[in-house]
Amino acid sequence: MQTNILNIDTICAVATPFGMGAIAMVRVSGPNAISIVSQLFVRNGKPFDLEEMVPNKVYHGHIMDKGKILDEVLVYFFKAPHSFTGEDSAEISMHGSIYVQQKLIQVLIDHGCRMAEAGEFTRRAFVNRKFDLIQAEAIADLISSESEAAHRVAINQLKGGFSKELQVMRSKLLEMTSLIELELDFSEEDVEFADRSQLKALLKETLTHVDKLKDSFRLGNAIKNGIPVVIVGQTNTGKSTLLNALLGEDRAIVSDIAGTTRDTIEETLNINGILYRFIDTAGLRKTDETIEKIGIERSYKKIAEANVVIGMLDATTGYEAMLSAANDIQSKVDLSIQQLILCINKVDTMADQGETLLGNLRFDLDNDGILVICLSAKHGFGLNDLYNALKHSQPYAAPDATLVTNIRHYEALLYASDSLKSVQQGLEKDIPIDLISQDLRQALHYLGSITGEITTDDVLGTIFSRFCIGK
Amino acid sequence: MQTNILNIDTICAVATPFGMGAIAMVRVSGPNAISIVSQLFVRNGKPFDLEEMVPNKVYHGHIMDKGKILDEVLVYFFKAPHSFTGEDSAEISMHGSIYVQQKLIQVLIDHGCRMAEAGEFTRRAFVNRKFDLIQAEAIADLISSESEAAHRVAINQLKGGFSKELQVMRSKLLEMTSLIELELDFSEEDVEFADRSQLKALLKETLTHVDKLKDSFRLGNAIKNGIPVVIVGQTNTGKSTLLNALLGEDRAIVSDIAGTTRDTIEETLNINGILYRFIDTAGLRKTDETIEKIGIERSYKKIAEANVVIGMLDATTGYEAMLSAANDIQSKVDLSIQQLILCINKVDTMADQGETLLGNLRFDLDNDGILVICLSAKHGFGLNDLYNALKHSQPYAAPDATLVTNIRHYEALLYASDSLKSVQQGLEKDIPIDLISQDLRQALHYLGSITGEITTDDVLGTIFSRFCIGK
Repeated sequence: MQTNILNIDTICAVATPFGMGAIAMVRVSGPNAISIVSQLFVRNGKPFDLEEMVPNKVYHGHIMDKGKILDEVLVYFFKAPHSFTGEDSAEISMHGSIYVQQKLIQVLIDHGCRMAEAGEFTRRAFVNRKFDLIQAEAIADLISSESEAAHRVAINQLKGGFSKELQVMRSKLLEMTSLIELELDFSEEDVEFADRSQLKALLKETLTHVDKLKDSFRLGNAIKNGIPVVIVGQTNTGKSTLLNALLGEDRAIVSDIAGTTRDTIEETLNINGILYRFIDTAGLRKTDETIEKIGIERSYKKIAEANVVIGMLDATTGYEAMLSAANDIQSKVDLSIQQLILCINKVDTMADQGETLLGNLRFDLDNDGILVICLSAKHGFGLNDLYNALKHSQPYAAPDATLVTNIRHYEALLYASDSLKSVQQGLEKDIPIDLISQDLRQALHYLGSITGEITTDDVLGTIFSRFCIGK
Repeated sequence: MQTNILNIDTICAVATPFGMGAIAMVRVSGPNAISIVSQLFVRNGKPFDLEEMVPNKVYHGHIMDKGKILDEVLVYFFKAPHSFTGEDSAEISMHGSIYVQQKLIQVLIDHGCRMAEAGEFTRRAFVNRKFDLIQAEAIADLISSESEAAHRVAINQLKGGFSKELQVMRSKLLEMTSLIELELDFSEEDVEFADRSQLKALLKETLTHVDKLKDSFRLGNAIKNGIPVVIVGQTNTGKSTLLNALLGEDRAIVSDIAGTTRDTIEETLNINGILYRFIDTAGLRKTDETIEKIGIERSYKKIAEANVVIGMLDATTGYEAMLSAANDIQSKVDLSIQQLILCINKVDTMADQGETLLGNLRFDLDNDGILVICLSAKHGFGLNDLYNALKHSQPYAAPDATLVTNIRHYEALLYASDSLKSVQQGLEKDIPIDLISQDLRQALHYLGSITGEITTDDVLGTIFSRFCIGK
């Protein structure tokens, strides 16, 4: 169980983004939050009377520093446990000068506050059981979400659906474990408190559920960090031109990730609320050159990691060469879990033959799962068809489906799944009940670590250090 | 008089600094602010009941977008005229994700808000007479203040001291103008309603006051933008080394202003709460080269614009050369309004002779107004003496003295001063009363333009466009 840390100190931080702006907000939380802030606060020229303080009321006045006005502010107080952190808290909404922000923090520290660490407000909220770890981590995801889809997933996790699923699973397993462990106490009497067939059914159900959650990580991660779309094709088929056209068309460039190697370039792009991570690769061609070979092998590796593969074909090379290239690309793609979109590029040079090529290729490939479209990356023709193809190739997720987006959760589910499989095998092989109990306890541990029912200070430290200061 | 614009639309903007952070705040103001925000707001899963809304109360709940949760938020409402703008207003404190911030603004616009222009909230507050133009401009100054001194001046102006001084002056002048203009109505009867000696006394008093305010701009501007300190000296005396030492010593570098010419470098530095603008110049020496001559002339020009001149002397050149250089620098400095600090640099090479040089130079210069110190810019020796010298050379300003910091105010005071001088001359020369009245009206106009009692849409547009969005 989580040990309840005594938060004897009062913390403060600027909670709004760093920089100059119209308004900034400073947050104070801890046992002395209300008394410290009210000491500095003056209303209508008179010291603020703590006796008359009404929680959750916005007060207008001035923050004073050594008898001088520091700033004109709005202040409101929250009484524990009715605050974000569950502690006494105060929020000060002030002018967004960098000088005033720094100065107020300094004045608060002079009056006994401590500068909050990254994520410390949320950590205190977790310790005070305002929410579990999944929800705490969802807040960090919510803040860094860059697309509608990522935002929706974070909001769903914040609502606690995932937490509830895990709790239900855990309490069922826990009940079963208790019954099994009862047998240990009466081991000499050879009784069975836990019904074996019921236990097996429960195990199967739980394992299916755990694996479903675990497998949702592929999609969840894609939604959070961008669906990986790799652009492959022989040299000079227009891969980079396509990437540039995509980036030029849509202004919502979110970030440039510098390629880890000189020859793969990644760009994140938000198209209709979905975040895509486009990966441009080195051109594929038969070669004996060592360096180029490495580049091509890297391209194949990128194909394996992608959710969507865009195969670029050059219409000017003639139909036979295109078909051969298409088959070559297709052989690298696992159509059961990946979407392949073949683009016949440079159709602007073809007069009216583009449609014919398209029809022939569709016929010869004879695979409904492959989308084929005509493009002119250079002239921006056909980009809408590509957007539509991407939309169709986006794996379906029910609006409220639980998606695992966090690698920590994914790993815990992976370990829980392994432990449950050991339990299953143990029951089949009729191995001693104390070993089975141990595997069950392990599964319970991993599931509990996700919500934070079981956790360590190290884990918490790692999780909350990812947060920004002031959260 | 200011025409009262009918603000029929409701505006919205993110008021916190741009970027990702723990918390962001969106501000909504206008006739529909409360109804629009309450429509989007859900508490405990139920639509927010506007009937039960208590102004200035912090509500916790969710902002909804098409039936889906957009974010978990705090919301509070202000009823006109008890708000910053004087209109109905709402503030939404939310998670600081860039996506959520943009989305909320979009949702508000979909519900009938308009994106606020820069400074529009403050402009509405001005139009609704929550404060005058000086105070509105002080808010912008407060937000951009980079030092304690600049912050204090802005706070003083925000408190309305400057406004009150101008109002008192203006109402006295206005009374006098009315009496003079009454004489115009009875011009054929040759009566004098306004006592001439009283009028002259009032004029003299007002002019003195206006000139005092006008002259405070030199200091006020220095406090706001940094006290200009020019570093001059012959080539190779260590001017750039000193600048680097100053910047290296004190970590509070506020900004780098790229020099307008290749050969003057400006750096802003906050030393003990005072902002200084250090200007490094081209070395002074006799030359016939045209380009170098231009550089040296530029150095002389920089000397004339500075509040403080640091004259660098090279201890290794020998005493006579140093004294000659010191006299040369002194001849360019106006000691009645500028502070000269002479630095004997490279004293580390002098063993114990530094103090002797210092004493001799002080004796030979024979001017109490000049500060002389020993330095080793290279080794950082003597920097504290320089800091102290800078502190002493800082012109004294009483903590609550009114300082003009705004060039618009300065220009208006300049014109008002000229008009009042014309009135004075007119009274001396006994010129027709209608011409005198015209000059008085002009002075009133200029004084009124400072507080915004008299203003035009153009002027307001220019002033508020300097603000950030959301203010």
